[in-house]
Amino acid sequence: MPVETIRWKNAELSIVDQTLLPERFKYITLDTVQDVWDAIKALKVRGAPAIGVCAALGLIVGINERKPVTRAAAIAAAHESAQFLATSRPTAVNLFWALDRMTRIADTLPEDTSVDVVIGRLEEEALAILDEDRRICREIGGHGAALIEESTGVLTHCNAGGLATADYGTALGVLFHAHQEGRSFRVYADETRPLLQGARLTAWELMKAEIDVTLICDSMAAQVMKEAKIQTVIVGADRIAANGDVANKIGTYSLAILAQAHSIPFYVAAPLSTMDSAVPNGEAIPIEQRDPAEITQGFGPRTAPDGVDVYSPAFDVTPSHLISGIITERGVLHAPYKESIARCLELARQDAIGV
Amino acid sequence: MPVETIRWKNAELSIVDQTLLPERFKYITLDTVQDVWDAIKALKVRGAPAIGVCAALGLIVGINERKPVTRAAAIAAAHESAQFLATSRPTAVNLFWALDRMTRIADTLPEDTSVDVVIGRLEEEALAILDEDRRICREIGGHGAALIEESTGVLTHCNAGGLATADYGTALGVLFHAHQEGRSFRVYADETRPLLQGARLTAWELMKAEIDVTLICDSMAAQVMKEAKIQTVIVGADRIAANGDVANKIGTYSLAILAQAHSIPFYVAAPLSTMDSAVPNGEAIPIEQRDPAEITQGFGPRTAPDGVDVYSPAFDVTPSHLISGIITERGVLHAPYKESIARCLELARQDAIGV
Repeated sequence: MPVETIRWKNAELSIVDQTLLPERFKYITLDTVQDVWDAIKALKVRGAPAIGVCAALGLIVGINERKPVTRAAAIAAAHESAQFLATSRPTAVNLFWALDRMTRIADTLPEDTSVDVVIGRLEEEALAILDEDRRICREIGGHGAALIEESTGVLTHCNAGGLATADYGTALGVLFHAHQEGRSFRVYADETRPLLQGARLTAWELMKAEIDVTLICDSMAAQVMKEAKIQTVIVGADRIAANGDVANKIGTYSLAILAQAHSIPFYVAAPLSTMDSAVPNGEAIPIEQRDPAEITQGFGPRTAPDGVDVYSPAFDVTPSHLISGIITERGVLHAPYKESIARCLELARQDAIGV
Repeated sequence: MPVETIRWKNAELSIVDQTLLPERFKYITLDTVQDVWDAIKALKVRGAPAIGVCAALGLIVGINERKPVTRAAAIAAAHESAQFLATSRPTAVNLFWALDRMTRIADTLPEDTSVDVVIGRLEEEALAILDEDRRICREIGGHGAALIEESTGVLTHCNAGGLATADYGTALGVLFHAHQEGRSFRVYADETRPLLQGARLTAWELMKAEIDVTLICDSMAAQVMKEAKIQTVIVGADRIAANGDVANKIGTYSLAILAQAHSIPFYVAAPLSTMDSAVPNGEAIPIEQRDPAEITQGFGPRTAPDGVDVYSPAFDVTPSHLISGIITERGVLHAPYKESIARCLELARQDAIGV
């Protein structure tokens, strides 16, 4: 098990500060809802599923901070915390999905519920989200592992590992599972500019798991493919539209085109909570723009002229026609995605309500 | 005129130390042939044409350092310096082309030539290479400028500017020329990992020339193309094979595929000295591997786990079928390149011998 990204103990929320990796592995406590917002914004915790889990627990931090004495005050604090946390990052839908799930629970509690019971019920729900994430990642790993064949090369981008989830990962969960099944393979990890999650986090997780990993710059992916070193590309997702278009870390769309040009299958691994059926296609997904300083002086010294214009979209959208399959906790979905996604979400809904 | 990259004054060779840019603009003197070798290896001077010019002058530094007292000793020193400098970097053919041109001159000098005349004749040849480079870059600029239309977007990679040549640039020479002709356009500059020549050098040169420039990470190029911000891609070259395959900075091949996928023309700008007719196709071009530390701690602090495997090819090869045109000092060459390149080189040879 690679790493426990998010901890909840005695109503205290702590996370691995991912901005310090790989040099330091350190848990920090998030004492206020502002701390939680800052941690998400600054990518101390990142990855769509991990953001969802952290926000759900962060909502409870927000309630406790207010010390509400009535049920109404507790529920109002839940809504305010949710609204605030929802402004931290716009692209990953798991954030909104988790906050929505929490406020729905709050809204259904009877009028005579005590404050302690409100908080207890919300804590239960947030921990359920966390536990489900652990289970779902392992299911994704199990469904995807067969795609990773013996002695092949796998390319991944950014970090869709334990650090991007509660503890096991989506794209890396697939690799961990294939490794546990005894197959050996080599992973090429794109360093993933500007914030180098591939270099700092993915390489670290894979080395820890004793999986062979080679670090490359993002611009080297095409060359590595041309040299026949890659047989599979697998990445995570921040939001998947109803038609199967996938928003993920900037550079993913580029990889999907390069994979197609080299006839390499391109897979996305993500839980169903990453699917946004309210969004018909990728064009409707909001793309976060990041601070130019992350490019011009992301690691200390300034490496670009003072005052230079910078364009820094944090994500891009890969059209579904470039995607060979979407690996979910309910199996691998294939084109046509509009149908396969709708069917999968409907089955999940029926299971949830016990149909 | 953007910048005078290489200076020769009173038998003293100095260069702009490009590793200090954009923070510091500073000339350093190269007093020994070892200094020249180190400067080329460490990319204090880089860019195929600039390496050629610097090596030609560096060969004279090597002779002077030995203080030869006979013609034979001077010529031996020329050959030894050339052999040594040729080991600095393997990919850019201009290095070998310039050194070969210098030693050929040395070899043709009559037996009774004095040491001073040997050195004088070689100095004359090296300065001719430098002067030709100034003229050729302007001719490339003139031939290519028409490809840059009003109010369009141009993507470039690495630095093929004044700093990569004697003083004007190849790919950027085209942009400087279009700018001088009064057209306005926006350049997107790939930062170009690992050594960030796009961020540090190209952005700096374009800002200095008052051309609109926006810096992006290499992984953002596909997204910028998808947003219809790019109408032309233009890059330099380190070596061009007889069939038109182009070795250039790692990431160029990726851009060529992305340009094709978005129906954007992809141009290479390079002098004829970059063409290596001895190499039939790109597969025969040696690709330099660089130090992993340039990726793992290129910004100062370590940004990848200690001991991680790294793959770091400095160049890649773009197959000629992805190239819309090669802009040379004799006009824009088109496919089939084997024929157009051979014809162009033959015409240049005939002109040189006065046929």
